[in-house]
Order: sequence, then structure tokens, then C-alpha cells
Amino acid sequence: MTDRPGPTTRARIREISGSVARERRDDLATEEPLEIRLRSGHERRTAAITMRTPGHDFELAAGFLHAEGIAGPGDVAGIGYCTDEDVLPEARYNVVTVHLKGPIPDLPALDRHFLTSSACGICGSASLDALRHRCSPVTPPELGLTQEILYGMPDRLRAAQGVFGKTGGLHAAGLFTAGGDLVAVREDVGRHNALDKLVGWAGLRGDLPLADRVLMVSGRASYEIMQKALAAGIAVVCAVSAPSSLAVDLAREFGMTLVGFLRGERCNVYAGPERIKLT
Amino acid sequence: MTDRPGPTTRARIREISGSVARERRDDLATEEPLEIRLRSGHERRTAAITMRTPGHDFELAAGFLHAEGIAGPGDVAGIGYCTDEDVLPEARYNVVTVHLKGPIPDLPALDRHFLTSSACGICGSASLDALRHRCSPVTPPELGLTQEILYGMPDRLRAAQGVFGKTGGLHAAGLFTAGGDLVAVREDVGRHNALDKLVGWAGLRGDLPLADRVLMVSGRASYEIMQKALAAGIAVVCAVSAPSSLAVDLAREFGMTLVGFLRGERCNVYAGPERIKLT
Repeated sequence: MTDRPGPTTRARIREISGSVARERRDDLATEEPLEIRLRSGHERRTAAITMRTPGHDFELAAGFLHAEGIAGPGDVAGIGYCTDEDVLPEARYNVVTVHLKGPIPDLPALDRHFLTSSACGICGSASLDALRHRCSPVTPPELGLTQEILYGMPDRLRAAQGVFGKTGGLHAAGLFTAGGDLVAVREDVGRHNALDKLVGWAGLRGDLPLADRVLMVSGRASYEIMQKALAAGIAVVCAVSAPSSLAVDLAREFGMTLVGFLRGERCNVYAGPERIKLT
Repeated sequence: MTDRPGPTTRARIREISGSVARERRDDLATEEPLEIRLRSGHERRTAAITMRTPGHDFELAAGFLHAEGIAGPGDVAGIGYCTDEDVLPEARYNVVTVHLKGPIPDLPALDRHFLTSSACGICGSASLDALRHRCSPVTPPELGLTQEILYGMPDRLRAAQGVFGKTGGLHAAGLFTAGGDLVAVREDVGRHNALDKLVGWAGLRGDLPLADRVLMVSGRASYEIMQKALAAGIAVVCAVSAPSSLAVDLAREFGMTLVGFLRGERCNVYAGPERIKLT
């Protein structure tokens, strides 16, 4: 395949219903690796390799670098697909090079999930301590959120997803105004990639931090999701499913509001309930 | 918290239903970092840091090392929690040290998702090529699978999950006989961790490869899931939700059967349909 990969891939499959089988075509969520390279003059370095759904790749790279504290949008001189001669055509759209205005920073935390390990060992609170060095607690304005505004968000997120996303193959991350209007949505096989794309989109427009926005994710809320939201200055995170213990700890530590199981006319508020006024 | 962390964590939350709020206690899926260390004599090295749900940590370490081709169960002399004096008590159960019989191998692929990057760039087929160096196509016996056997698996997996897992906070991976009996189940906030725990459990019992077993995962089937199943010699993988394009490519390339959307009395077969006989 030398064409640029799309977000979906056609495949012949066998559908079995009861005891009857039939062959048909189906759309799959495309999953391909993406290498994010940093470049400064003639120096270059791989910052990360991640499995992702092709599309919005520049935004993914910008959002990833911002979330990990490697480079903010203001540090970026330009972003492009790899045009090196040594890159095979079929890999050309799987390598994004981010040209930096300054030198390439040290990437000390580039282990599996970008967590800080130290001689004294690792634990959840050590992870939060490490975050405190580069993220401040959110200090949002009074947002005026009500339960009715929250209840309207899942349907708007679903309606904005592509047809394919509704089949369950893709995670979605949506950015809303405090009034409940959808601003942007991004999708990916990886939950964290969908959020990186969304934050990268905002960053490349000069819209960071997102202090007056509300984030909604289609799945669960993990530490990684909350950490990326915090780095973007987002004060309110809503999830369709459950949060993890460390996601709740992070939200409480940094003054964020975390809502889970937002479905129909109900939700659970795990942190920062004072931002939601009942009407 | 200096106690050993459990799989669930209690938290006070606010539940909002309609326009009524009440405070109550809730169980959260615990998420804590785990560092997997390799040790050989006085030499030691960090192999990975991953966010996981505490429990079955030794199995997780063994399964991870096997899946990534770093060390098989036969290379392991012993596994223990860290007893170094420089590890703080609260981190003691977040560091697992795997003592190797031989020297610590090179860990060249320890980038974000353990993918191979090369000068010529990366793409899905290059990822499959890299796998071919260390995994053979599965060569299972005739398993005698029918659609009826498959239809019975989701309920058995759900029944075997802990009460908490049913709330949607945890991913599950279950190992079945070809007759549809559940052999073992493991849960985790991370889909890949649940599978590592399951394969590690089998490996530490001396049960690898798992050529005559069927794997079922509670969520979607990604490249990472299929790669880990392949490394364990599992020929048949079933998922409750959708597979990705690269998961399907991998299954077809290595002769595996991949079933998705296995719910009620229906499923989609994306690869290897010849293993399922309709009755």
C-alpha cells in the first residue's frame, strides 16, 4: 500500500448470525504506527512511536509533545511528513517531523508510559509529585455548569462522530463550551491519541490553555487522560465510563472536576462537584 | 498509603440522577504504576513501567517479558517484590524484580510501544515483518470449534469477572478450552495487562504455548493484543468489540482466527473462518 492510509480500511469478513453465515464487506478502524520525530537544524531524534488511526497526524504530534512537556505549540517552527530519501513510500505518512525553533530538549522520561522512575521507586503519589513540577492546578473561571448541560453532551458527541466511530471501533474525545456546545471532536483507536489530536488542534490555533472548555471522552478516564487534560488546562473532564483510582486522585490534587458514567440523565461526580450547580 | 494496594479503592462520590444529588461510597478500579526490573547477579535494569491494577503482578511481569520476546518462563530464576533498602515502603509493591538465569538481554525495542523503528521508516507491514523474526505462524490442532461454543463464552467470561469488573472499570481476558470451558480469567485497567497476566499465569505453570486454547477479551482487538496472543501460540482470539485493521492483518498473516462483535447469537469472523464449523 503506497497510498496515504485513511481512517478506515475495507475488508471481506464472514458474518455469522445464529447458524447462518454470509460473506460481506466491512469497514475497519485503521491502525498504523506513527513515529514522531523532533528536528532542530541537522539534529533529529525520535520522540515517540505510537499506534494510531491515520488522520490529524500533525495535531497528534503537537498534542503529544505538549502533553508530555517536551515542546509547546510556541516551540514549533513547522510540522511535516517525512521527506527523507531513506523513508520508503509506504512509510512516508507514518513519520511526522516536528521542526523546533530551539534545540531538541532532553527526553529523559521516554520509557513505556512516560512515567518518572526514581531510585526510591514509583507509586501513584510519586507520579502526581512529578506532574506538579510542570503542571499547575487548574484555576478556571466560574463555568456555570448544570446537570442539564452535562446530560446533553453524550448525544452531541455521538452525533459528531463519523459513521464508523459509532460502530465501536474508535474512541472519541470532544471539546465543549461550558454551555454544552461541541467545539471539536477527534477519533482514534487509542483513547490517548484522540485527546492528543484534540489538544494539538487547539494548540496549533493558539487556543491553549483550554480553561473555559469541558472535555468529554467516549470511554473510561485513566491517569493518562487526566494528565493530558491537566497539561491543556482543562478543568472539567467527563467520561462515559468509569474513572480509575489514580485519575480521581489526580483530579482532586489539581482541583479538577471529574464526571464518570455520564449516560442518560445521570452521572457520578468523583472530584470537584462544586462546579456543577443543580437546577 | 503503606499497605499493599488492592484491586479496588473506596472513594466518596456524588451521584446525580435527574436533578437530585446524593453522596455515597463507590469502588474504583485501582490504577498504580508497576516497574518491571530485570536482575542478573548484581546487574539490574528496568524493562518497563506500566500503569496497572495491582494483583497478579508476578504473572504480569512474566507475561510481559514473554510477549515482548525479552525472556521466556524458562529464563526466569525467580520473581519477587523489590526489597531494596532504597525503595520506599509505599512503592514496594509497585516494583517487581525478575531474576534471570542468564545475563540481561539487550532491550533495543524499549520505545513507547515496543515497535521496531528503522531508518527506512515504519508501517504496519514492517511491524509484521519484525514479528516474523521471533514468532511462527500458529499451527494448532483441529479445535472442533462451533458457533454454539463461541456464543456461550461472553456470559462465562462476565460471570467469572469480579463484581467490580462488571461495573465497566476493568478489562478482562479469559482463556477457554476449545470446548468452551473457562480455564482462567484476569482483569486490569489496561487491556494489554489483563492479557499479560493471563499468559504469565500459563507460562509460570509451564503451559506455553497455548495452541489448543481460545482467548476472549472484553473490549476490542488491537495489534498489541494479537501480537501478545501470537507470542503465546494462541490460534483463536475472540473480542466483544471491533478489531483494528492491523489486528486483522496480523491474524491473516500468521494463520490465526479472529472473531469480533461476539455478542448474543452472532459474531463477525475477520480471519481464519475455517476453524469454526457451523452446526
